[in-house]
Amino acid sequence: MSGLTPSANPDSGRTVISVDAMGGDRGPAAVVAGISLSANKNPDIAFILHGPEDTLRRLVARKRNLEGRVEFRDVPDVVSMDDKPSQVMRHGKSTSMWSAVESVRNGEADGCVSCGNTGALMMLSVVRLRKLPGVNRPAIAVLWPSAAKSGFNIMLDVGADISADENDLLQFALMGASYARNGMELEYPRVGLLNVGTEEHKGRAELKAAHDLIASNAENAQYEFVGFVEGTDIPGDRADVIVTDGFTGNIAIKTGEGTAKLIGSLLRQAFKYSPLSRLAALMAYTSLNRLNKRIDPRRVNGGVFLGLNGTVVKSHGSSDATGVSAAVKLAFKLGQSGFSERLAARVASAVSLPQDDASSASEDENE
Amino acid sequence: MSGLTPSANPDSGRTVISVDAMGGDRGPAAVVAGISLSANKNPDIAFILHGPEDTLRRLVARKRNLEGRVEFRDVPDVVSMDDKPSQVMRHGKSTSMWSAVESVRNGEADGCVSCGNTGALMMLSVVRLRKLPGVNRPAIAVLWPSAAKSGFNIMLDVGADISADENDLLQFALMGASYARNGMELEYPRVGLLNVGTEEHKGRAELKAAHDLIASNAENAQYEFVGFVEGTDIPGDRADVIVTDGFTGNIAIKTGEGTAKLIGSLLRQAFKYSPLSRLAALMAYTSLNRLNKRIDPRRVNGGVFLGLNGTVVKSHGSSDATGVSAAVKLAFKLGQSGFSERLAARVASAVSLPQDDASSASEDENE
Repeated sequence: MSGLTPSANPDSGRTVISVDAMGGDRGPAAVVAGISLSANKNPDIAFILHGPEDTLRRLVARKRNLEGRVEFRDVPDVVSMDDKPSQVMRHGKSTSMWSAVESVRNGEADGCVSCGNTGALMMLSVVRLRKLPGVNRPAIAVLWPSAAKSGFNIMLDVGADISADENDLLQFALMGASYARNGMELEYPRVGLLNVGTEEHKGRAELKAAHDLIASNAENAQYEFVGFVEGTDIPGDRADVIVTDGFTGNIAIKTGEGTAKLIGSLLRQAFKYSPLSRLAALMAYTSLNRLNKRIDPRRVNGGVFLGLNGTVVKSHGSSDATGVSAAVKLAFKLGQSGFSERLAARVASAVSLPQDDASSASEDENE
Repeated sequence: MSGLTPSANPDSGRTVISVDAMGGDRGPAAVVAGISLSANKNPDIAFILHGPEDTLRRLVARKRNLEGRVEFRDVPDVVSMDDKPSQVMRHGKSTSMWSAVESVRNGEADGCVSCGNTGALMMLSVVRLRKLPGVNRPAIAVLWPSAAKSGFNIMLDVGADISADENDLLQFALMGASYARNGMELEYPRVGLLNVGTEEHKGRAELKAAHDLIASNAENAQYEFVGFVEGTDIPGDRADVIVTDGFTGNIAIKTGEGTAKLIGSLLRQAFKYSPLSRLAALMAYTSLNRLNKRIDPRRVNGGVFLGLNGTVVKSHGSSDATGVSAAVKLAFKLGQSGFSERLAARVASAVSLPQDDASSASEDENE
């Protein structure tokens, strides 16, 4: 083993990220290439890599810049994309995903990254890391390319098959605002509640109730509530944090992905159409590349699980080195800022508000 | 009045479209320019135009090709975008929207087009035209640019604030398949049910029930059921008809619109970046224009109300001449094919299936 002493202790100087090397569609080589990219850019990062040690050591040995910065956890099994979360909970102890989450649980890593099965990773994270005090339902938050100055909006929950009541939606607003503050340096994020219209009389009953709850918590939790927003505002500049239930959020994010993909492929076709347009594509290469970077899902693919004792970042299943590196960067940033602790404080201070009057809430929370 | 004798009677040779000239964001000039575009392309079309007759006559007089092809219905009032549907129902008899729907109701037009307030148009259409026998909940269907050979998929319902149970979703599937057959000439359309995953165990309970209902009606109603589809499939090539509830559909369509708009504006920025990229944009003009046409929401903006005694097409509020013309084209196509009657037959033949065994259903329906 190298001279690295991974530790979540900030005194060690390095932030340690626990990485599930298996389970992504492109295998461990893409993951190792990704952490190598991260290591290049960031001298303050170290890794614990989970998977079959022999394979991983061989891959890591080829990357000079990883020398002395990686520890291994030898585990033989892999969670596949088809495994049911409940099966993984019962029989998955020797998988790289389980092991990767465990490193956060036992404090040897400051955050975890996996490209594997989302449902299994979520269940594992919830069961092993446990929910923060006061959090009823953890959520998955994604960054979404937008017209905002930062270039991104945060949307949560995109976690799939569960609906959310007004209290869940309030917690998503609190967690999303906290994430915006710590992950995107937005001191006073704008929070919007996703609905089918911006008029207050529209939409489902739980949305109207959530509207009032989120509004009454705004001052105390230091966000600006912009009210209902629509699908067009997800990539827009009206809100930094878009709050919705996991079903709607999942449909929306995938619709956006699909639309971007269709336009990209039509654009490529357009530029291949004639010799002139092929030449034009060449000439506009730098500009188009800049556009591509801006909306490249690989660069924004870090879905973060919010509401747990520890930071877990879900990278896209088909992540290549660029995608893994983006997810690692996010885990690093959140791990370094002590995000989980801050979020816990925020939720704890606000959770009593639905019952109480907003003005009677404690005002001593620090974030 | 001109020599035109508008009539829904196919023997008259012309298909008559009733057009609400007011209520769109760009006023009656854009609407008249739009019907003039349609008249240019289509010798078999005539119009009834609803709004303040003086204003409309002046606008129409400037378009030579509209001579003898437009009748007027003089009504003073306009439904605004902020009017509540219930108010319009009570006090809206002298509005251009009401009058436009009325021309379909009394049989003098084969279809109606309006750029006005969606909620009001929907409520007016439902109350005045009434639902087709057997239809529980009418739906709004949109065309969506896609990777499919036809260039479009149909998605329904996008009608906003109502949820749908499994029987509603089955009816959406039947109506969407019928629309695909009559509006897009797809003999055997592929129908998909929108969910957060393609596995059959995923998603809400009503989606699982709808899955089975839609599957068991496939053979009888002559569509192929491809099962659950995801947000990425809305602009994709897995299904021609995407079935979902009005809330989810509305969020999805607006997310897609917003994403396309963001990419468009980033693309324009990219091409303005340097003299070289500006030159490139010039050189690729034709190709980019072709792309633009393909995904231009103005060209696909005709939302159709399905399940009523009569065809009503909702054009985008900000429709310009191109947008109005696209909506008119759709209304013409559906009006000419006797779409409402065919859809009624289809729903009537299938509506008993949820209770009965699929194999015992009548097999004599013609569509």
